[in-house]
Amino acid sequence: MLQSKLFTRPRKEAPRDEVSKNAALLVRAGFIDKLHAGVYTYLPLGLMVLKKVENIIREEMNSVGGQEIYMPSLQPKENWVKTGRWDTLDVLYKVTDQSGREMALGPTHEEIVAPLAKLFVTSYKDLPFSCYQFQNKFRMELRAKSGILRTREFIMKDMYSFHRDEKDLKEFYEKMKVVYARVFERIGIGSQTHLTYASGGSFSQFSHEFQTVTVAGEDIVYICGKCGTAVNDEIIGIQTTCPNCGESKLKSEKSIEVGNIFELKTKFSEPFDLIYTDENGEKHPVHMGCYGIGPARAMGAVVEVYGNENGMIWPESISPFRIHLISILGSADSGAEVRAVAEDIYRELEKKGISVLYDDRDLRAGEKFADADLIGIPHRIIVSEKLVKASQYEYKDRSADLEKNVSKSELLALF
Amino acid sequence: MLQSKLFTRPRKEAPRDEVSKNAALLVRAGFIDKLHAGVYTYLPLGLMVLKKVENIIREEMNSVGGQEIYMPSLQPKENWVKTGRWDTLDVLYKVTDQSGREMALGPTHEEIVAPLAKLFVTSYKDLPFSCYQFQNKFRMELRAKSGILRTREFIMKDMYSFHRDEKDLKEFYEKMKVVYARVFERIGIGSQTHLTYASGGSFSQFSHEFQTVTVAGEDIVYICGKCGTAVNDEIIGIQTTCPNCGESKLKSEKSIEVGNIFELKTKFSEPFDLIYTDENGEKHPVHMGCYGIGPARAMGAVVEVYGNENGMIWPESISPFRIHLISILGSADSGAEVRAVAEDIYRELEKKGISVLYDDRDLRAGEKFADADLIGIPHRIIVSEKLVKASQYEYKDRSADLEKNVSKSELLALF
Repeated sequence: MLQSKLFTRPRKEAPRDEVSKNAALLVRAGFIDKLHAGVYTYLPLGLMVLKKVENIIREEMNSVGGQEIYMPSLQPKENWVKTGRWDTLDVLYKVTDQSGREMALGPTHEEIVAPLAKLFVTSYKDLPFSCYQFQNKFRMELRAKSGILRTREFIMKDMYSFHRDEKDLKEFYEKMKVVYARVFERIGIGSQTHLTYASGGSFSQFSHEFQTVTVAGEDIVYICGKCGTAVNDEIIGIQTTCPNCGESKLKSEKSIEVGNIFELKTKFSEPFDLIYTDENGEKHPVHMGCYGIGPARAMGAVVEVYGNENGMIWPESISPFRIHLISILGSADSGAEVRAVAEDIYRELEKKGISVLYDDRDLRAGEKFADADLIGIPHRIIVSEKLVKASQYEYKDRSADLEKNVSKSELLALF
Repeated sequence: MLQSKLFTRPRKEAPRDEVSKNAALLVRAGFIDKLHAGVYTYLPLGLMVLKKVENIIREEMNSVGGQEIYMPSLQPKENWVKTGRWDTLDVLYKVTDQSGREMALGPTHEEIVAPLAKLFVTSYKDLPFSCYQFQNKFRMELRAKSGILRTREFIMKDMYSFHRDEKDLKEFYEKMKVVYARVFERIGIGSQTHLTYASGGSFSQFSHEFQTVTVAGEDIVYICGKCGTAVNDEIIGIQTTCPNCGESKLKSEKSIEVGNIFELKTKFSEPFDLIYTDENGEKHPVHMGCYGIGPARAMGAVVEVYGNENGMIWPESISPFRIHLISILGSADSGAEVRAVAEDIYRELEKKGISVLYDDRDLRAGEKFADADLIGIPHRIIVSEKLVKASQYEYKDRSADLEKNVSKSELLALF
């Protein structure tokens, strides 16, 4: 893409009211814009990152047989009354239509997916299965000061699984632990993200979170120095050793919850009468699990881990483009030649199917580099008068902090 | 995909409260489920169709340089007060948060995109550009009886364009007419869909709609017998001849509005002070256009056009799968052989990158064919005991109503 065509551009200064590092950086870089407290617009570069995170999650959900669906935000009050959450869930936004009918703006979808499953489950032969969605959630958060880590409106991937018994649920749940770890590995925060034991409420002994260690975190986790498993704040009082390996040395760190998985068991199948008939004609409630990841929160966690005062270096898997090509035009005389060389390599790279952001703007080198640092594409190619004269390109791998001058054929061979 | 793994299945009967053909068919086929009036869940097969419609629209928007973004649903009241629409737009859902602050649930995004553009537009050099989104809209519709044609919550593609003057807006607007026609052509309703002159309000002489002729339509259009251009109900009183070619014979037809385009001009740039400075240092308001398509409504229009009492035949471009492979297992003896042949061809087709729904279920032929008719995949391959004995496959192109027995190599050569 030609950078001159991009309608957004980096801003000189962070907005004064943006205290979080992730949002301050992403707003400065032109990836997002804050509409009001806890509510953000995703601009072209930001949406590209978000979609890449989503696609990685989608591939992993499909790998365990998850079937993608899309459920509504406008949810009948009756469903929420049935589970007792209409009056108890404090983050629930409520809407009234012209006839005075009240509805919930979905903060989660157990109240919708359980009766949906009832349409298709009668026999043990209909189990197990799982379905998931990427869907906009609404939560009336009191605190909305952590940028895109905690917002009032956000896309969430929520998966729900359905099983004949606790054993089958447990097997799937263990598979999901592995799949979740792979998601965070693929988006670049695998080594900072810990499987964390959390309180399971009244229905399971534990649930699990995935917590990414960073100083911006709102949570605190206690990490086992031996195996890397963690426990969260809620349960450290009752669980003072590593629940995985028994190690007694746990180190506290600030962290961001980037995912969570729950064994819901029959908590939602019972109120909605979601039952199946087994081989002997006996009826049982379906066992459910639920599994959440917020792609935007995960993106925010990546920014907290990889951002610095000058900008970002995106992990290649979720970078908006693979290469940032920058022309340094110099004088009017040399400018035309530099431009021709840059356009030529731009075309060649695009022809190879490599996504390139080409900074073709007529700006000073310093300004272009500052913008490029903010945008954070990991591979950079520079074309300048001096380089063109030597038939060379400057190539920089920013993650590896590697920089070298290369010929055209050497450059093309790198990708 | 193995049909036995799909968690949904066609239902025997249409739901009694579903009066529209599109929703009755899609619910029976297991593509959608009605949560409550005007609010639907998209199930796996339905979401596949919706995503294909979206991708066609996305490709066409990108072809004119549109940049994809994603704006929020929770919108500040102030923005709506500024344009005077807080009190006048009757479909506006309003939400109040815990601090008593009122917000709109976005039914459209002019109130958000105009101040957003203001962040990035100062000079004539920043124009023109266009941006679009696929985003969930909320509209408090009084009538919600046309299935997925008119719902209270729906994904909409809304594009907004920004220009220095009316001439530049007009040029882009004309380009969008062509692009819109191509979208409807690609999703299979090109020949039923007419460019329609509509009322432009106080800001333009005309706006334009794209209307698909079908008996289920809520609208009426008057179509020129000569050039195919139409006028809508609102303006037939003042415009009694074809506004394109002057022809006086116009034929009335029921129709569905599947898209609309407006020249907003300065209606939204003025309240939000969206101005730019020209080459001479003079300031002018930005001229805007907006361009909407509801992918679900377009999908509903396709069902109205292609559906019949037995089910659907999807246009290949938006069919959930390209091929429906059906095994007729017969007796236990022959069943194993039929299954082996069907699995073999399933693997070969998938290896070629062709998407196949393989009905591997252990059901009677009649039941499988009835389900396949409902689901509506255009190409069908049948494997049965008799065919296997003759080393043949039955291939059916349902759109062309063509049926023939072919060998394996002939079959593979068809795709």
